[in-house]
Formats: sequence, structure tokens, C-alpha cells
Amino acid sequence: MMGHEIDLKNYEIRTDLILDSIENKSVDIEKDIKTSDDIKVTKVFVDKDNGKLLSKKEGNYVTIEFKDITDTGNKDKLTDAFSCELKDMLNKLNISSDASVLIIGLGNEKSTPDSLGPKVIANIVVTRYLFVLKEDVKKGVRCVSSISPGVMANTGIETSSIVSSLVKEIHPDFLIVIDALAASSIDRINKSIQITDTGIHPGSGVGNMRREISFDTMGIPVIAIGVPTVVESSIIVYDTINYLFKHISYIKDNQSKNKLIFSRSNYADKIRDKDLSLEEKKEISGMIGELSDSDRQSLIYEVLSSLNYNFIVTPKEIDFLIDRLTDVIAGGINNSLHDEV
Amino acid sequence: MMGHEIDLKNYEIRTDLILDSIENKSVDIEKDIKTSDDIKVTKVFVDKDNGKLLSKKEGNYVTIEFKDITDTGNKDKLTDAFSCELKDMLNKLNISSDASVLIIGLGNEKSTPDSLGPKVIANIVVTRYLFVLKEDVKKGVRCVSSISPGVMANTGIETSSIVSSLVKEIHPDFLIVIDALAASSIDRINKSIQITDTGIHPGSGVGNMRREISFDTMGIPVIAIGVPTVVESSIIVYDTINYLFKHISYIKDNQSKNKLIFSRSNYADKIRDKDLSLEEKKEISGMIGELSDSDRQSLIYEVLSSLNYNFIVTPKEIDFLIDRLTDVIAGGINNSLHDEV
Amino acid sequence: MMGHEIDLKNYEIRTDLILDSIENKSVDIEKDIKTSDDIKVTKVFVDKDNGKLLSKKEGNYVTIEFKDITDTGNKDKLTDAFSCELKDMLNKLNISSDASVLIIGLGNEKSTPDSLGPKVIANIVVTRYLFVLKEDVKKGVRCVSSISPGVMANTGIETSSIVSSLVKEIHPDFLIVIDALAASSIDRINKSIQITDTGIHPGSGVGNMRREISFDTMGIPVIAIGVPTVVESSIIVYDTINYLFKHISYIKDNQSKNKLIFSRSNYADKIRDKDLSLEEKKEISGMIGELSDSDRQSLIYEVLSSLNYNFIVTPKEIDFLIDRLTDVIAGGINNSLHDEV
Amino acid sequence: MMGHEIDLKNYEIRTDLILDSIENKSVDIEKDIKTSDDIKVTKVFVDKDNGKLLSKKEGNYVTIEFKDITDTGNKDKLTDAFSCELKDMLNKLNISSDASVLIIGLGNEKSTPDSLGPKVIANIVVTRYLFVLKEDVKKGVRCVSSISPGVMANTGIETSSIVSSLVKEIHPDFLIVIDALAASSIDRINKSIQITDTGIHPGSGVGNMRREISFDTMGIPVIAIGVPTVVESSIIVYDTINYLFKHISYIKDNQSKNKLIFSRSNYADKIRDKDLSLEEKKEISGMIGELSDSDRQSLIYEVLSSLNYNFIVTPKEIDFLIDRLTDVIAGGINNSLHDEV
Repeated sequence: MMGHEIDLKNYEIRTDLILDSIENKSVDIEKDIKTSDDIKVTKVFVDKDNGKLLSKKEGNYVTIEFKDITDTGNKDKLTDAFSCELKDMLNKLNISSDASVLIIGLGNEKSTPDSLGPKVIANIVVTRYLFVLKEDVKKGVRCVSSISPGVMANTGIETSSIVSSLVKEIHPDFLIVIDALAASSIDRINKSIQITDTGIHPGSGVGNMRREISFDTMGIPVIAIGVPTVVESSIIVYDTINYLFKHISYIKDNQSKNKLIFSRSNYADKIRDKDLSLEEKKEISGMIGELSDSDRQSLIYEVLSSLNYNFIVTPKEIDFLIDRLTDVIAGGINNSLHDEV
Repeated sequence: MMGHEIDLKNYEIRTDLILDSIENKSVDIEKDIKTSDDIKVTKVFVDKDNGKLLSKKEGNYVTIEFKDITDTGNKDKLTDAFSCELKDMLNKLNISSDASVLIIGLGNEKSTPDSLGPKVIANIVVTRYLFVLKEDVKKGVRCVSSISPGVMANTGIETSSIVSSLVKEIHPDFLIVIDALAASSIDRINKSIQITDTGIHPGSGVGNMRREISFDTMGIPVIAIGVPTVVESSIIVYDTINYLFKHISYIKDNQSKNKLIFSRSNYADKIRDKDLSLEEKKEISGMIGELSDSDRQSLIYEVLSSLNYNFIVTPKEIDFLIDRLTDVIAGGINNSLHDEV
Repeated sequence: MMGHEIDLKNYEIRTDLILDSIENKSVDIEKDIKTSDDIKVTKVFVDKDNGKLLSKKEGNYVTIEFKDITDTGNKDKLTDAFSCELKDMLNKLNISSDASVLIIGLGNEKSTPDSLGPKVIANIVVTRYLFVLKEDVKKGVRCVSSISPGVMANTGIETSSIVSSLVKEIHPDFLIVIDALAASSIDRINKSIQITDTGIHPGSGVGNMRREISFDTMGIPVIAIGVPTVVESSIIVYDTINYLFKHISYIKDNQSKNKLIFSRSNYADKIRDKDLSLEEKKEISGMIGELSDSDRQSLIYEVLSSLNYNFIVTPKEIDFLIDRLTDVIAGGINNSLHDEV
Repeated sequence: MMGHEIDLKNYEIRTDLILDSIENKSVDIEKDIKTSDDIKVTKVFVDKDNGKLLSKKEGNYVTIEFKDITDTGNKDKLTDAFSCELKDMLNKLNISSDASVLIIGLGNEKSTPDSLGPKVIANIVVTRYLFVLKEDVKKGVRCVSSISPGVMANTGIETSSIVSSLVKEIHPDFLIVIDALAASSIDRINKSIQITDTGIHPGSGVGNMRREISFDTMGIPVIAIGVPTVVESSIIVYDTINYLFKHISYIKDNQSKNKLIFSRSNYADKIRDKDLSLEEKKEISGMIGELSDSDRQSLIYEVLSSLNYNFIVTPKEIDFLIDRLTDVIAGGINNSLHDEV
């Protein structure tokens, strides 16, 4: 009802992460989930039909979720897990151990939340000049080249044009593309790595003029590695309101019982999965509660955008997080590309 | 009513900006406001009584609000305005043109949103060694020294201890302290500069173990220059919910009228100042709407904190914003300190 | 005589600067010299025959020599002079005001003495995306794109391959290439800018595997802008020994006269152009003095290389010098490319 | 003889390294030398008398010389050796395992060859705030604080004043000071670490207005850790001329013998220790050869200074060298300070 009254624009939340899309659109899809040491790996194959529902390309998506990488032990475990999943993806695509690779670090080194790609590139072990110089290369060492093409605002050149011109020039057998992404839930910011064989796509993530970098445009396999490092304010608000519903509902259910129930240790898990009826939501939050999820999301987006307050934000600690993530991604790539390193 | 039901913790929003405090606590205080070229300067004197109401120190507070400093023209105008207000503060405190100054850049250069202080220091024109070496210093050039003491996490030393030990060693006549602050409204992030003669205070801003740097602790005047560069997620949510109320109320009032009213050009101004009755808020947002402002704020803080989602965030473009703000603050200080530059 | 005795290897000093080559090889060539405000501009056209003598490509070479760019006034004058000479080169090559340009910053941003190219690129005003998006571009604004391709040690890809692949992809009408050079005299390090229409060549400068970037390889005009930022130790030694000869000869000539002659103000100019006979050199420096210039140079190179002491060095202040030179080169390019900036 | 003719100024070569001083002044002093894995450790105790001869303070000096730290294995061995020598120095000074330390990183982070001190500080494990907050600190963890005070050109404050004011404020039991030094021979640049209990002294190294930081001025033990990262051009020239003498003499001795003698593998070792008579030097280099070592050094200094060519230089690869040295020094300090890390 209210949806009509406030004349919602047709607004579709943009996200780069398949798990966000699956949640947001409530698509029923088979997930292969594996957990160990606080690291959760979720594998999904999106077929043509689900791809349409999700506005995502057909292909394999692997999401690695983790908790704290300021701890060195956790960081090492994550690096191993990531390296292992990347190797697995190479096998799935039948990429042989002597296939040559060009690694592309997208993003702007001068802008911290967008600097992951260039920083990873600075830490990649490059070997291609050994092959060019016909030096005696050890068995098990793959031919690796890499580049940080910069961003269109600085180069004036579409990034995909730079990549495709290089592919034509040096003929790598496959591409790895690293990019910072936009999350569409506060749960996953700086807490997940997505590996996919579908490449990088326009319209995914925060809108800029990028063209697709994929098998379709490059003619060779493209493995995209993405880490969400930013989030729109409207998403923070939307997620929080949902948690407010769950929180209040939880309190109401438990208010006559004893106080110990409030212990922080299990609170989060208890409310995270709580479901509310529309009636409950209406009681808790009136007209706002009565809206469908997507209408509520659109309303928040609409209001913040109109006021120019829909900032894209990043955590205060982003410099340190990017440093850690650089170690994980570069270390994991170096490990998985060569039999001998 | 609801306040009792959900067992709100006694939570007080922390803010570094006097205008945020005045708004949040609805304290009635005289403001001297001056506007030109999109720059708004608000001067407030907080006396002892208002200080108690606001949890702020007695003294002068000048807030300069501005819009877009990516435009070079605007940046230059802001630098002039800031320089002018700083000179005015020096006059108000009867600081003579040959009084020596030590300028302190608080914060961590390695963490972008916290790097304003050290970056300003790197651009200050320092003259003290000329005086020490008894070189022939031009008339109108003040004795200026500066330091970036670092942050306690890196030095292990309370920053105020470093400052007070230097004050005892080199005996400056007054201090200028530059710091990145936490905003308590999304309106003001990276859009205001606060100048105050009350110094830097514990408990203001995002909680860390800082001790006060002020006339009381240093024995000389302390002018603090602060720019809000970060904000808590809970504040984004609280502010947005308030705008949702205003937006929906505005739509309801205008829904029978013609559509042109939606033109973005004047929408923001129209809703920003809209006031709603409790009844309206309840209709729009049920139990959440029914809460008092401070209870709603506490509720949001409580839920996000319990889930570990109350991130302190900064806009994605923070690297560029800090660069611009550095130019403004360092340029303005250099201009205002010397008759001859 | 001695030359035979010590079995000198056939060693040819490598230099990137035409004026160094002309001096080292004593080639007689017409120079068009213009001086104002401590800035000296020398224009040379190298024809085929002189090109062979100098091991340099046929074409135009403009050298701008300057003194102190830590002074802001001098820096601005140099920027104007450089901008003016670059415009002049564009005219000489009949490059029209709407011809599109791709600007290439060679070098490694992570290595200070080699970071000039990438740092200039970061300050170039790029416009090509306006043309791509068919936005309404002001008359007098040229289509500009730019890239920092990195160095082969990091990318594994020959830099000239990256450039040629981009030329094929985006079809610029001409190229500007910026590079840090090796000086072959201590007079010119960080004190000259060379502009040439002959491009960048292998074998010039400190030996690395670079291929030529020139009209011959790219099919479009290539303007190379080079600044010497490093020098081999052997060149410092060779130059100093020459000055020792001149100094001692000068002292001997003047030892009976009065002491005032030692005033530093005119000493340098007096000895710089002093010529010594072979006899004098032999008296002053025995077997070393008796060697021909090129044999002495080879000897020094040979000894330092054998000991692994022929370091390539850069002045201690290189960080600040690169910052200033970046301002000059980027500012000058931005000014000269557009009628309207 | 010639010394009189050319009116040599009384010029004394400045050096920060005890081994350079001992060589330059040919002082006979007992050395305790230990070599393993390409790492050579030389320990010297300078008593009052030798101190006068060497213009050095009385005390212990440990010099660690090494070859290639771009190799990770070598870097790790050097870190161990350095850590071990630092522990040894702590024991020699009877510094107990719970004595608190303030670590000072001298130098300017913005100037690469001078950035070692600040970069080491950024990698020190600081613990003092744990003690201040009375947290439960593990046994074997020492109270560590640290600061990078900046350079006088930027702060306007004598660095030793900043340090002494902090010593008075926080009362550490001893100081560790890290600094980039000037070498006085090309053999040792970026190839040695000096540890001494004599502190940092005025007049040592490239002349700036620094005051002493030592037991005498601070009242607590001061361990200075220095790495030569720069060298004056005049020293490169002086050293090279000496090698020219040795080289030519070697050639003359061996010219009738077979050519294989030129193999690079043993050439360096053979000429390095060659001694020449004055007669030989005169034959090889005439009046220049006839000068005493110190007069020749003064002459070169005089000529280069008069021409403003006595640059202080650093190797082209300084950025990478500083990164490696930072790892070694910070890693070694962290290891040696705590029983438990």
C-alpha cells in the first residue's frame, strides 16, 4: 500500500557479491559449504536461469568468509585457504601448470579503499622476463606477468581496453583480475574474498563506466578475485533497521524471563536468524515496518540520495585492513601459481 | 514506556563538535552566524552553566561550515575564511604578534582518516631555529615550532605527556593543536572546521586514553583546530531514520498535490527543517517512532554494538579530502601566524 | 703509451644527454643558445652524419639548463620556459591543436630516483574520457590520455610492448614519453631537462633491456622528455680529476699573486674553462695525466667495475628534487597541450 | 711540499664509523674480529687516549659488516647476528631484563636516505601502555616506548631537546637511538651496522646542528645504532684514486706475465691490500700522487666544495636498501629486548 503512496523509483540494489545477491533476492540455489578454523567457504554454481534471477553471469563462485585477520595465525590460515581455493579453480577450468597468466590489479593506488589491486600487483612474483630472455627456468615455475592499469579518471582510457590490448600483444593463456568491491551487507565488508570464473562485470558494484573483462570479451579464461572494502550508507541503515526489528522482537519475547538472557556471548547468534511476521514489523515500526524489504531498501536509498548523504564509506582502519588483505591475496596467488615457490 | 521495556543502557552520544552537542541536547545558546560564498561561520561562547548542560568546557567555539573543496576556487575562499577566524581567535586571546607558538599535529600518519594532524605539520613554515641561531629574522615573522608526537599505540607514551614535556623544555607562549574528530551528524563530516580556545579533551570523540591538552594542564593558551573525518555507523542510522520521518511526513502532506513538488532542487531544504509530532512518528514508525530521540539513539547504538557492527567509518574519497583539508589548514595557519609571509 | 700498457677494454661512456655526448666526443655542431633568468636553452639539430659520430638518432634536441628550483620563483620561471619549448616542439612537428596525445610515464614509482615518470602522470590533466563519452568539450581542449606502464622487473612485460599495444588500441596522434635519465657529467644532474623528437632509445643511459619507443617503432611522432637524476660513480671521479687538473694549474699560475684571487665568487667560472696541455697534465698527475680523456675514463670505469664500486648514485635530497621536477614537468605539459587551461 | 703551495685549508674528514676513523688516521688499536656466513663482527674498545687521536668518545664500538641483504637467507642471518650483538651490549652495560627503554628514530621519513630511524620506529613492538594501564604483562616482556622526533628543519626544535624533555617526563632506564650515518669509505655504504654505547655526537657525520645524545647529556645509558646510507662525492673520488694507484701498480708488476691474472674473481682481493711507495705514487700520478693521503683528501674536498659539486650521494637502489635494513634493525631490536617475543 505504502509503496504506491511514496512513489518509489525502480531502484535495484547493486552488489558485487553472489552471496549478497542470493540473500537479497531470496533465490533458492544449492550451496556447497565447508567450515574450519573460523573460515567458511561457500561454493555456488549459477546456471543460466539463476543467472537471470540474480542478474549475475553463469559460472562458478567461491566465497571465503573469515573473521579476524589482524591475528597473524588467522592471516596465515586464510592465505592457505585462499591459495587452496584458487588452485581448485585452476583445476576446475583445466588450466595446466605451464599455462601463462597475466595478472591485472584494478583500482587506484592513491585511494586507500580502492588500492587493493595495485598493492597486490606490487607483491606478485613475476617470471615472464625469464621466459622472454630464454633463461633457464626451473620446472614448475609458470610464466607470470602483471600490470596495474590505473583508473579511467586518471588514464582517460577504458581499463578493459588496456587489458584487451595487452592480451592481443603478449597472448597469456588466462587472466587473473583483482579488484576491491562494494558489499551489500555490513556482515561481509573486509570479511570475505570472492573467486569467480565469470570475470568482472559492468553494473556490478558501485556504478562506473567499466566494461566487462571476461572470457566473452578477452577470449581466454578470466578468474576474478574480489574483496568488498566499501559499503553504501543506505545499506548500513537498511541492515540496521532489520536488526532493530529482530532485537525488539527478541526483547518482547524474553522480557518476562530472567535478565541473564542478555549476555552478549550468544545474543548475536540468537537474533541474527529471527524471523518476524509483517504484523510484528508493523507494530514495531509502523508504516516503515509494513513495507516490503525491497520497498524499504528503496525508500532509504531514495531519501539519502535526495539529500546527497548516500556516502560510500569504509571502516576507519582501512589502511591496516588493506595491508593485511594484500599479504593474503598476493601470498595466496604466488603459492597457487607455481609448483615450486 | 518502551524505554523501560528494552532496558536501555545509559548511553551518551560522544561528539567533538559543539554544534552537534547543541543540537543533540537542544540547549538554547546565542549563536553569532555569518554567511558568504557558501561558507557559514558560527560563533558560540559556552559559559559555565551551558558547559555543564553540553558536557563541554567553557570557552569560545568557532565553526566554519563549507560545501565543496574539490573546487580550487572554493578551497581558496575557505583558506581565507579559516585564516581570518584563526587571526580573530588570536586577537580575542590577546596573543601578541611576537608570541612564540608550538604547533602539535595529533593523529597517525599511517591511517588516512587520522592523518590530518601529521600532514598539516609537514606543511607548516617553521622558524624557531632562526631564533635559536640568532639569525636576523624579519620583523613580523613569529617564532614557530611544530611536532607530530604520534599516537600512544605506536609510542607507548600518552600524547599529552609528550606535549607537556616539550612545553616545559622550549617554553612556547601558546599552543595550536590540530586533530581529526568524530562527527555526530552526517551533515558535518569533512564539511566543517572547528576552532576553539578550550583545547582537546578526554571523553570527547571516539574513546581513547587521551588526556586533556588545555590551558589548565599546559599553563598556556591552547587553540584546538578540529575537522570531523569519521562518524559512527549508529549515527548514520539515527540521522537517516530522522530523515525518513521527515520524508514520509512530507510525502503524506503533499500526496494529493502535483508531482513537480518532487524536484530535487528544493526537496532537501524543505524536509530538513520539518518537525513531526510524536503521534506522527508513532504512525510512521510504531514503537521505534514512539521513543524519545535519545532513547532511539541509544537503542541503535546498543543493537549495532552488540553485533559488533558499530563501525567507525569514513567516506571512500578520504585520501583526496585529507589532501585538500591539509592545504586549507596548513595554508591558513601559515597566513595567520605571520604579518609577513 | 700507457693506454697500451694497461690493456684498456673498449669501453664507451653511456649517456642520455645530447650535450654530454657532444662534449665527450668533441663533435663540432651548431648550437642555438638562448639565456634568461639563469635558464639556458640550447637547441641542436643532429643530422645523419653527426648522429653516427654521436651514436644518437637524427632529430631535434632541446636542452633546458637551470640552477635552483627550490626557490618558488625560479621554479615558476622554469615551468614557463619548459612549457614554451614544448609548444615550440609541437609546432616544429606540425602537430595540430586538436591532435590527440598519449602520455607515458616510464620508471618505477617505488624507487625515488626513477619515479619522475609515474609522478608526472599522476599530475597530468586527462581529458580523453570526455571525448569517449561524447561530452561537450570546450574548444581548445585537446584529447589527452596517460599511463604509467611500470618497469619490466615488476610487470614481466617489455615496456615498449605495452606502449605499442596501446597505440594500436586507442590510436593517439602522437606520444609524449617522460623518463629519468643518467647524466654523464656532474654539472647536469637534476639541473637539466631534455626535449627531443627522437624518442627513447636502447643503449642510451644505464643499460637495461628496453626497446626503442620512437616514430620508427610506433608510427607516430614521439616526444621524449628526460631529466638526469642519477650518475655513475666513475663519472663523478672522472669529472673531479679534470677539475683537479684545472684547479692545480690555476693555483700554479696564480701562486705569486695576491690571495684575493681565491674568493669563491669567481673561482668556479675561472677554472671551469681552463685548458691544460698534455705536458701540464703529466706534471700534475703522472701516468694518469698522460692518458687521453677517453682512456682515463675507461680506466676509472674499469677499476670501479672490477671492485663492484661503480654505483649509480643520486643526491641525498632526491625526494625533494623529484617533487619539484614533477611540478615543473606536469605543469609545463598541462599548459602547453591546451589553448584553454 | 705541494701542500704548502696550494694553501690547503685545515680540513678534517668527517665520519660516523669508528672503523673509518681508525683507517683514516692509522691508529693502532686492538680489534676483536669474528667472521661467519659472510658476516664480519669487529669489536673495538676506544680508551681516553685513542679517543683523542680518533676524535671519538671513549667506549665500546661494534661493527657488523655484511654483503648482500637482498637475499632473504642472508637478511635473516644478519638479523640474528645484529640481535645477538645488541643483547651482548645490553649485558656489557649491565642493563637488566626489566629495565625500561625509550627508542628514538632520528631522521626524516620524507627523505629516503634519511628515513631509516622513523621507519624502524614504525616497526618496533611497543609495550609501555600496558605497564601504564597496569595490565597483566607477561614475564620477560620489557617496558618499551618509542618516538620519531623529526628533524630540526621541520620542527624548529633541537632533536636532543625533544629527547631530553621526554627522558625527564617518562624516566626510561636507557635509550636506544637509531640513525642513518655518512660513510667515509665506499666499502661500507649500506654494508655495515655500528652499535656503540657512546651515543650520538655533534661533529660526527655530515654537519648539522645536532647536539650530543649520550650518557653525559641524558644521565642514562645511550646505545646508538647507526647505518651508513650516504657518502660525500669527495670520498668516492679519494677512494677511487687510491684504487687507481693500486690497480696501475698491480698491472705494472704483472704486465709481463700471462693474461689470466685478470680474472675478476680474485682481482679485487689482490689489489685491495696493495701498498705503494711515495715514489710509485709520484710516477703514477705526479703532483697529486706526491701528496700525503690527508692532503690529497683535502685537495679533492676543496675543489669539489668550491664548485658546489661535493654532493652527498646515495645509491640509486636506496628505497629497497632502506626497506631491508628496516626489517633487520627493527626485527633485531624486537628480538633482543624481550625474553619472550
